[in-house]
Amino acid sequence: MAISGQSLIGDETVEGGPACFRGINPTTGETLEPAFSEAGTAEVARACTLAAAAFDAYREIGLDKRAQFLEEVAEQILALGDELVERACEESGLPRARIEGERSRTVGQLRLFAAAVREGGWLDVRIDPAQPDRKPLPRSDLRLRNIGIGPVAVFGASNFPLAFSVAGGDTASALAAGCPVVVKAHPAHPGTSALVGKAIQVAISHCGLPPGVFSLLFGAGIELGAALVSHPDIKAVGFTGSRNGGLALAKLAAARAEPIPVYAEMSSINPVILLPAALAARGEAIAKGFVASLTMGAGQFCTNPGLLIAEDGPHLESFITAVRSALETTGAAAMLTEGIFEAYQRGVAKLAGCVGVVQAARGTPGDGLNKCQAAFFTADAQLFLNNHVLREEVFGAASLLIRCEGRDELLQVLNALEGQLTITLQMDEEDLDAARAILPMLERKAGRILANGWPTGVEVCHAMVHGGPFPATSGCRTTSVGTLAIRRFLRPVCYQDLPADLLPVVLRNDNGGEIPRLLDGKLMF
Amino acid sequence: MAISGQSLIGDETVEGGPACFRGINPTTGETLEPAFSEAGTAEVARACTLAAAAFDAYREIGLDKRAQFLEEVAEQILALGDELVERACEESGLPRARIEGERSRTVGQLRLFAAAVREGGWLDVRIDPAQPDRKPLPRSDLRLRNIGIGPVAVFGASNFPLAFSVAGGDTASALAAGCPVVVKAHPAHPGTSALVGKAIQVAISHCGLPPGVFSLLFGAGIELGAALVSHPDIKAVGFTGSRNGGLALAKLAAARAEPIPVYAEMSSINPVILLPAALAARGEAIAKGFVASLTMGAGQFCTNPGLLIAEDGPHLESFITAVRSALETTGAAAMLTEGIFEAYQRGVAKLAGCVGVVQAARGTPGDGLNKCQAAFFTADAQLFLNNHVLREEVFGAASLLIRCEGRDELLQVLNALEGQLTITLQMDEEDLDAARAILPMLERKAGRILANGWPTGVEVCHAMVHGGPFPATSGCRTTSVGTLAIRRFLRPVCYQDLPADLLPVVLRNDNGGEIPRLLDGKLMF
Repeated sequence: MAISGQSLIGDETVEGGPACFRGINPTTGETLEPAFSEAGTAEVARACTLAAAAFDAYREIGLDKRAQFLEEVAEQILALGDELVERACEESGLPRARIEGERSRTVGQLRLFAAAVREGGWLDVRIDPAQPDRKPLPRSDLRLRNIGIGPVAVFGASNFPLAFSVAGGDTASALAAGCPVVVKAHPAHPGTSALVGKAIQVAISHCGLPPGVFSLLFGAGIELGAALVSHPDIKAVGFTGSRNGGLALAKLAAARAEPIPVYAEMSSINPVILLPAALAARGEAIAKGFVASLTMGAGQFCTNPGLLIAEDGPHLESFITAVRSALETTGAAAMLTEGIFEAYQRGVAKLAGCVGVVQAARGTPGDGLNKCQAAFFTADAQLFLNNHVLREEVFGAASLLIRCEGRDELLQVLNALEGQLTITLQMDEEDLDAARAILPMLERKAGRILANGWPTGVEVCHAMVHGGPFPATSGCRTTSVGTLAIRRFLRPVCYQDLPADLLPVVLRNDNGGEIPRLLDGKLMF
Repeated sequence: MAISGQSLIGDETVEGGPACFRGINPTTGETLEPAFSEAGTAEVARACTLAAAAFDAYREIGLDKRAQFLEEVAEQILALGDELVERACEESGLPRARIEGERSRTVGQLRLFAAAVREGGWLDVRIDPAQPDRKPLPRSDLRLRNIGIGPVAVFGASNFPLAFSVAGGDTASALAAGCPVVVKAHPAHPGTSALVGKAIQVAISHCGLPPGVFSLLFGAGIELGAALVSHPDIKAVGFTGSRNGGLALAKLAAARAEPIPVYAEMSSINPVILLPAALAARGEAIAKGFVASLTMGAGQFCTNPGLLIAEDGPHLESFITAVRSALETTGAAAMLTEGIFEAYQRGVAKLAGCVGVVQAARGTPGDGLNKCQAAFFTADAQLFLNNHVLREEVFGAASLLIRCEGRDELLQVLNALEGQLTITLQMDEEDLDAARAILPMLERKAGRILANGWPTGVEVCHAMVHGGPFPATSGCRTTSVGTLAIRRFLRPVCYQDLPADLLPVVLRNDNGGEIPRLLDGKLMF
């Protein structure tokens, strides 16, 4: 499929302004064709207006048709075949197996949302039938369902060119909720974005949906995203990226005449707590697991383990030695962009420059462009407690171990943590009481708590929470991965005494399907 | 029970600063004893710190104990007996029957939340069991439940001294969610607030809960509320009041180091659309229903019908005549405070002063202080479309009828509406097609859509939505009335591969109860 370098607005390809940009292969520095023409405010307005015009029709096409559409998007992505995989590899520098795995994840995610749409629990159907004879006042007939919030702006993330990008979790959950989507492609993988965007366009056409259900805009600067978030037809925003980027979008959204929610997944250092018995019994195995999680994908994951916390002692020394020996034989991988590589270098240098921070190990430097040389530091708890730099995310394969003098200091360190996507416990049977004592604090700090695993590798399922207290996300009440992500783009509507003919089908007494409903407070199928 | 005039912080009564204020009987202007000492930042800090300290213990006392506590609060409110009713009547100027009804509503609301806590659907339990043999990668065991968001600041509203105040819907839903609550009492009914606060304090003691679960602070200025919303231990805010007040709190909350959600229910004019067949068939009955809804409680409801929209014609003239004759015989009731009365007078004068707005009828002026003389205006659609003043809420018994030249103009008027709590259709069988055509627009504009009723009288039940797009609320995805209100104060936490001993009881395989759960995507009991 030819990549045109133009934005996709509804069923058209649209040339933007004269400015343009190109993808770059981060492993070679090679500039990739074609040039992408930058969309401006006119294209934003056109895409958003079209999305708003499509909203009412799209949200009422019926659950099965909506699910079929998501499945068709998955099919069309697969139909892109090797071209998609190759382009994504070129633009991201990620290995082929990783991109193939990510494609499976993306397709599986769309199918999971299709199943969730059919199941219908997300509609939150509630029916409180009329009680005409109630004293002192009769009760009206009251029925509730969720509807889509309206057109959603989605920002593709750099680090998952498929799974958190054009047809990623934000798009899939918004479409599942019945919301049209306008995506701003991440400028690091425009060709990949164009291919996936085209696949969605084809799926819309095959399913006979209004074209405004999806648009894809290209732009390399921040103006395009700002215009998109500020457009009055946009009713919510999904974003995965930096803390500064997320906060800027949240500020714009709050300043609108009609403020809208921004679901920004931003910054997390994903602490791993090494409890004493586990450390004593299997420090070396934990060290190996840690290094594998730290260096996977050059550490470019939101859930990368950027902080270890443990009580000081000989077992911790052995652990550090084991980390060093594992890390020093770990090869360096290219990072996604030159900008990310430079920010990583700066972050590592900043940590290394802190008085009291010890560089305990580095990975191999690696040859070639933009190679992420892993870095492992240690520092005392008091330093962590007194220096904010130690709590900041360094995006990439860098991690910091905090040595605590006993349990009290460990608790102080935990208490000083900002909100996190994940917190992990490395624990054995004898650590159970210690784990139990800190669990409430962990629940307050993180969206996901793991025992004896590693935070990288976020399962797409029903029980996943990929979210957490600020600054992990802009709001702690949601997830951006898993079926619960649909709830971000829904709002409840109550219908009081509406004639049956006027009621939405899912709220009628004979709704025909097996959609769960809360009838007078009792859950029924 | 003696009213001390002091704030309640945990299990203590605490004197604030030297400044103080008193309640005022709005019907007589009489100042009521005792003086209430104003809480300052020290009291805010003390209440919030205590709330944070109580959070972990309170949220894990067990569902049945939490439900019993809500029921005990209801009992203790009833045990206040006539003293509460009399004080609330004195401070609000509302008639005894209204206050008694509101007490029933408040007590019923607490009991409904108790039942909802026991039912457990709000926990959103999800279990995706491990799949150790899955290829290419095994799946971890993943389990999700909701927990409370943390200590919640609640602002008592002036217009419901019981049901939207100290133990009102915000407090009940936050306590049901497992969140400690710090209430800022509304200065218009401090004695009522003190009595109810004391009832909650007694219930906490009877149930053996940590005292920090509830505090009540008194203050007449805006500083107290600002300090409360800015305190780092507060994690969410519930507010019912003016648009300016709600926006100010939202701004403060967004500017915090850790931004928090503000659930502000602010401003709605609750349009009522008079469709042609209904108007022709029963214009007079609709007029009577409208005047009753408009003037009930001096119109001091968030859901007061402040806007009527209809196509022009002879049936509309008859309707206006019928409204005039019903309104001119409707007595004036005292408003809640002198400030509210003055704002009402200003709002009515502003509308009356708009060129093209016709004062079609007034209620009787009434004798005595702060009497709300109802006001009914008419204007042409073009004026409404061009003058923002006509879309602003006038809190009290004032309403504006918009005359439309045909269906297209009616649609333009609907399209120009801001977000609303409610939109009502007065419709007959022959209006069904017209109603169907505009329903999608109504769904986008309002949280609740009614047919042939009146928006005043908000049922406390499962299917209620008392919320809606901005500026009806600060966020359209929630309700402040009904059991769904609990969701505002919850956040999901995922537990990955935790040993069974460490898992929260509701997530264990043998959770013992009948809490609904989504097992591998299938809803089970």
